[in-house]
Amino acid sequence: MRSYCDCFQCFVKHALESARLVTSDEGTHERVLRAVLRKSAELDMRQSPPAMVQFIHGVIRRALKDADPYRKVKERHNALALKLLPELERRVRRAKSPFSAAVRFAIAGNCIDMGTRRALDERYILDTIARAAHAPLFGDIRALVRSVERSRRILYLADNAGEIVFDRLVLGRLPREKLTVAVRGSPVLNDATMADARSAGLVGRFPLLANGSDAPGTILEDCSRVFKSRFNEADLVISKGQGNYETLSDSDKHVFFLFMVKCALIGRQLGRNQYELVILERGRLV
Amino acid sequence: MRSYCDCFQCFVKHALESARLVTSDEGTHERVLRAVLRKSAELDMRQSPPAMVQFIHGVIRRALKDADPYRKVKERHNALALKLLPELERRVRRAKSPFSAAVRFAIAGNCIDMGTRRALDERYILDTIARAAHAPLFGDIRALVRSVERSRRILYLADNAGEIVFDRLVLGRLPREKLTVAVRGSPVLNDATMADARSAGLVGRFPLLANGSDAPGTILEDCSRVFKSRFNEADLVISKGQGNYETLSDSDKHVFFLFMVKCALIGRQLGRNQYELVILERGRLV
Repeated sequence: MRSYCDCFQCFVKHALESARLVTSDEGTHERVLRAVLRKSAELDMRQSPPAMVQFIHGVIRRALKDADPYRKVKERHNALALKLLPELERRVRRAKSPFSAAVRFAIAGNCIDMGTRRALDERYILDTIARAAHAPLFGDIRALVRSVERSRRILYLADNAGEIVFDRLVLGRLPREKLTVAVRGSPVLNDATMADARSAGLVGRFPLLANGSDAPGTILEDCSRVFKSRFNEADLVISKGQGNYETLSDSDKHVFFLFMVKCALIGRQLGRNQYELVILERGRLV
Repeated sequence: MRSYCDCFQCFVKHALESARLVTSDEGTHERVLRAVLRKSAELDMRQSPPAMVQFIHGVIRRALKDADPYRKVKERHNALALKLLPELERRVRRAKSPFSAAVRFAIAGNCIDMGTRRALDERYILDTIARAAHAPLFGDIRALVRSVERSRRILYLADNAGEIVFDRLVLGRLPREKLTVAVRGSPVLNDATMADARSAGLVGRFPLLANGSDAPGTILEDCSRVFKSRFNEADLVISKGQGNYETLSDSDKHVFFLFMVKCALIGRQLGRNQYELVILERGRLV
């Protein structure tokens, strides 16, 4: 999707909140803001919003001289999710439709998103996961099940740290021989990288690939050659999170987008409310 | 007061909401936004927030080729307030302290502010005025009464259309021979100009002066020579609205600021909540 006029106030708000989260130095806050304002003024609106968020976090990392300011918070989210995993796995096994229950928890795990929610406390995460067992899931999960059965090469695009632990519930129910799980190439926001995949217990369990990019989404032009060819070869892409949706919603690929709606504008476009859980096939609720 | 990093997201939000309020042309929305982003990126933070809002509305008026896009909404607010005035005047007369009751309604009238509230419907205005009769008024109204008695030249800085109708409750209780009422020099946002003062019934009743500026506040350097000398001669300034507070809070003058707190940051600085009614003497709650 392109950027909209509504996006700018979020860019500015997100830039300031992110800068404040990682440093208390007000000079840095102002420098980050001014860089983002300058860049926004000249933004090519055909670019998707995550392209600007990628820029914002590049500015912040350079200002702080810290390649991964979210390292600690990501470790905390992975640890919290790992604590919940055994109980969720039990509940999934006992569910009438285990795959459906797994998908539900994996989408609820998408609440762990520092891009749209600054005050992301443990209580909020626990409540969201607890509610997920009974929350409505908008979209056609049977279409996803059928596509998994029919496809030969499945590419699963992970999203955030913490969230990727919940993804294990789904990943463990996909045919391993068809599967590749992609994470970000290097740190941006609280998005999952290979290091996070390791601490979340994915390494050794699933075939993993870093996408070569530090965008909080999947901007194909910015990804590595290896990732792009894997993307092209896949006949099914399962994409987690709103950032991956924003960057791939116009793709011709057969993509299922699994995420929690966070942006009010995207909610309006889909006819859904904020914080609802959705499965979109090729960008459409079916 | 200076501008803060927190102000930028409000500038961007306000620019888009204002542009959308006055035109549905999306090209104009984007042009206004980009101009505001560019200007914000280079903003001198020693300037008060209303300086940027002045810029925003200059851009909007030029883009629309309309010198007063808020004309109709201001007329509506004046008409609504005029309808309420006789009943409020009766209630003020019956009050234990009529001056205090008048001040309370005049400050509540400051809810009519298109700068901070886009969805400003009639119901909200009526409810706020109704609640004002019993709402707490933070600050020392007796200090204001004493200052009015002692002063020789009182300058009353009006704020918005609609609101100035409620100001008549207070203005009618100030000594006419000491009084000058100032309005904006030309249209900006829904701020009251001489035309609005006329339709609000102030012309002929009170000595009026336009300040020569189109800032949504009182930026002295931007005001006319006549206004500045009237400002300097006054030994008491009664200032309505948050915009006048933001632009005069650092003044050495003896100013009483009467307004409804709208900005969360100003609320924190004053130790007050949003939407509370305050009287500040020289910028301080006493």
